[in-house]
Amino acid sequence: MRAAFDDLFAIVRSILRWAILIVPMAALVGSVCAAFLWSLDAVTKIRFDHPWLLFLLPVGGAVIGLAYHWLGKSVEGGNNLIVEQIHDPDGGVPLRMAPLIFVGTVATHLFGGSAGREGTAVQLGGSLASAVGKLARLDEDALRVILMAGIAAGFGAVFGTPLAGAVFALEVLAIGRMEYAALIPCLAAGIVADWTCQRWGIHHTVYRIGWMAGSEGAGPLDPLLLGKAAVAGVLFGLVALIFAEANHALGGWIKRVIPYGPARPVVGGLAVIALTSLLGTRAYLGLGVWTAIPGDPTIPGFFTGPIDHWSWALKLVFTVITLSTGFKGGEVTPLFFIGAGLGNALAGVMGAPVDLFAGLGFIAVFAGAANTPLACTIMGLELFGATHMVPIAVACFLAYVCSGHNGIYLSQRIAVPKR
Amino acid sequence: MRAAFDDLFAIVRSILRWAILIVPMAALVGSVCAAFLWSLDAVTKIRFDHPWLLFLLPVGGAVIGLAYHWLGKSVEGGNNLIVEQIHDPDGGVPLRMAPLIFVGTVATHLFGGSAGREGTAVQLGGSLASAVGKLARLDEDALRVILMAGIAAGFGAVFGTPLAGAVFALEVLAIGRMEYAALIPCLAAGIVADWTCQRWGIHHTVYRIGWMAGSEGAGPLDPLLLGKAAVAGVLFGLVALIFAEANHALGGWIKRVIPYGPARPVVGGLAVIALTSLLGTRAYLGLGVWTAIPGDPTIPGFFTGPIDHWSWALKLVFTVITLSTGFKGGEVTPLFFIGAGLGNALAGVMGAPVDLFAGLGFIAVFAGAANTPLACTIMGLELFGATHMVPIAVACFLAYVCSGHNGIYLSQRIAVPKR
Repeated sequence: MRAAFDDLFAIVRSILRWAILIVPMAALVGSVCAAFLWSLDAVTKIRFDHPWLLFLLPVGGAVIGLAYHWLGKSVEGGNNLIVEQIHDPDGGVPLRMAPLIFVGTVATHLFGGSAGREGTAVQLGGSLASAVGKLARLDEDALRVILMAGIAAGFGAVFGTPLAGAVFALEVLAIGRMEYAALIPCLAAGIVADWTCQRWGIHHTVYRIGWMAGSEGAGPLDPLLLGKAAVAGVLFGLVALIFAEANHALGGWIKRVIPYGPARPVVGGLAVIALTSLLGTRAYLGLGVWTAIPGDPTIPGFFTGPIDHWSWALKLVFTVITLSTGFKGGEVTPLFFIGAGLGNALAGVMGAPVDLFAGLGFIAVFAGAANTPLACTIMGLELFGATHMVPIAVACFLAYVCSGHNGIYLSQRIAVPKR
Repeated sequence: MRAAFDDLFAIVRSILRWAILIVPMAALVGSVCAAFLWSLDAVTKIRFDHPWLLFLLPVGGAVIGLAYHWLGKSVEGGNNLIVEQIHDPDGGVPLRMAPLIFVGTVATHLFGGSAGREGTAVQLGGSLASAVGKLARLDEDALRVILMAGIAAGFGAVFGTPLAGAVFALEVLAIGRMEYAALIPCLAAGIVADWTCQRWGIHHTVYRIGWMAGSEGAGPLDPLLLGKAAVAGVLFGLVALIFAEANHALGGWIKRVIPYGPARPVVGGLAVIALTSLLGTRAYLGLGVWTAIPGDPTIPGFFTGPIDHWSWALKLVFTVITLSTGFKGGEVTPLFFIGAGLGNALAGVMGAPVDLFAGLGFIAVFAGAANTPLACTIMGLELFGATHMVPIAVACFLAYVCSGHNGIYLSQRIAVPKR
């Protein structure tokens, strides 16, 4: 019993020692994420005001490609590099990752590439955390912890979901297993980064599920609705599988066909322009959160009523082309679009509440693609409240088991295979 | 890519095959839990109407002790036996565990022992699941899965928290690591058992945090409040540590002093009677959810306003005496009482909202004692809604890291030490 109390004092000391490193690191990551979100907003408005910018997408792609070719070879791995450094620390993550991914993502969005934010935020978090860790001369174990905290900070700040950020950082490292070694540093980092980002005046988009709204705890169980959520969950997992496999397949193929890196985003940019002209819509460019043209599908729009049956598939095509040819940004906001769009379509087919199923797709396709069912369930609760927590978990868990073993992060290890 | 789709079909087939076993098993567990909860309610009312029953507590203890001595040697391990059988399947869990723990717990509550429900529900779930697994001639791996699903079913049904039940079953096996092998069977078992239990007309106590109620997603972050929740979380962990260590210490000591098993609860019963007379209150007998005497501390009462500063400590003493001398029941509802009482007291000292801090203690002392921070966080969301999810996670995670490595389940393995 005495030993247990000695342990307790050691742990409280360790928490306080970590706080000295984590709080400033997370405040820095939260501030950079605020600048990043502000920039995304600004360049998207510029793109809406100057539609001709799309035709410069191949030029923007060339610039991004050349920047990574000349300056960024060591950080091309992106999120995968951070996950690898957590598994086998080997020099940490270069600090140059931060400016390169920041500018690369903002440029991608200025010219209308279809990409997201989370990859960028995680890379900002990981590289800044690594720099702080090197400054503090941390050993390998501690470096691992601060890198995970960096992921939590970036993710928590960029989506305004601190708890999901913390669990994501623990869960993303391996498929089928989560370890708690960095529990408190990750939670603290997610909270501090989110709080800092909001103090800079950043407001996150509110997605509202109005159906059954009002109850405080979890709502009553409805077997029929849960059955529909389960079927939808399997389909969300299938689409996550298609997204990840298509990214890997197209990315591998284009690397073989066009060995010179900076040329690939030029071709990708031309393909996005061609598709946009062919379809006659700009709805699938950029984040998909805002639109210049009322009536175009957007993520918040999928929560308001029936939209269409194919938007999710088109967004998938635009995003796979954008990301696999070397543009920068994350996969997650496009996955939110794909999921919410698919959920919206399935709600019509299945006779289910549109806003609930848009919400289920929003988080479950991401859960399947990233192999992070618990982080996505928690994200669903942070965004939509607890009323629908059981259908949310059903959709996320089923999407996870049905999405195969090659998620969007190939450096994720397989600890416990799905079966 | 083809292989990925073959995997998907194999997984969907596996889900459907598991459903055939899990749904009836969980419906059975949910029904037995309904009968158990109904019985607890009934015997507590009888005890309130006939206060002299307390004086038969030593007799009741003797009967329980003799029943386990003659019939129950193989199931005395209780929850620990189930956890051991999941780690190393070796013949499964004997079915006789179910009637023994059912009757033993109901008898404990009829005569006024201070005990809970979750241990009983988990043992009902584990033994019934093991019986179903043997009937279906499952192999070792599958037996492991159905045992975990049995835990999820019992826990989900008894507290009306299906998702917490599922995560608890995954999380309780080891400290510091959670594996996802049985994710879907556990989720399905928790949902079906909870639904079945409610269909039998069982209503769970509603605990309401009124402070800041009304927002749908997570509420805004308040650094001062989170700081108070963090300090409280450390104290909740410390009390969890004291509770678990006291149980182990007193349990071990009394086994040395009174080697004959059936005599131990007789002594424990006499001690409870003596303490009750000495203190002149019956508030610390039974579950602590209801009271015959208005004004006595109860768990729901801790959510309504300032109560006192010592109830939590007295309940701890009563419960440790009851359980370590061989009465039956769980630790968790007393831990809810201890936590909510301590949270209530801390709210007064710290100048924090009473209902919120009662809620934080309710789940966080349990998180620390059982080493299940995520399950308890999720339970908090199922019971109290998402508004306070960040302080809930802060309290549960800190209680977890501060509660040492000897929780209430000694067969829990240490996968990743706390540090």
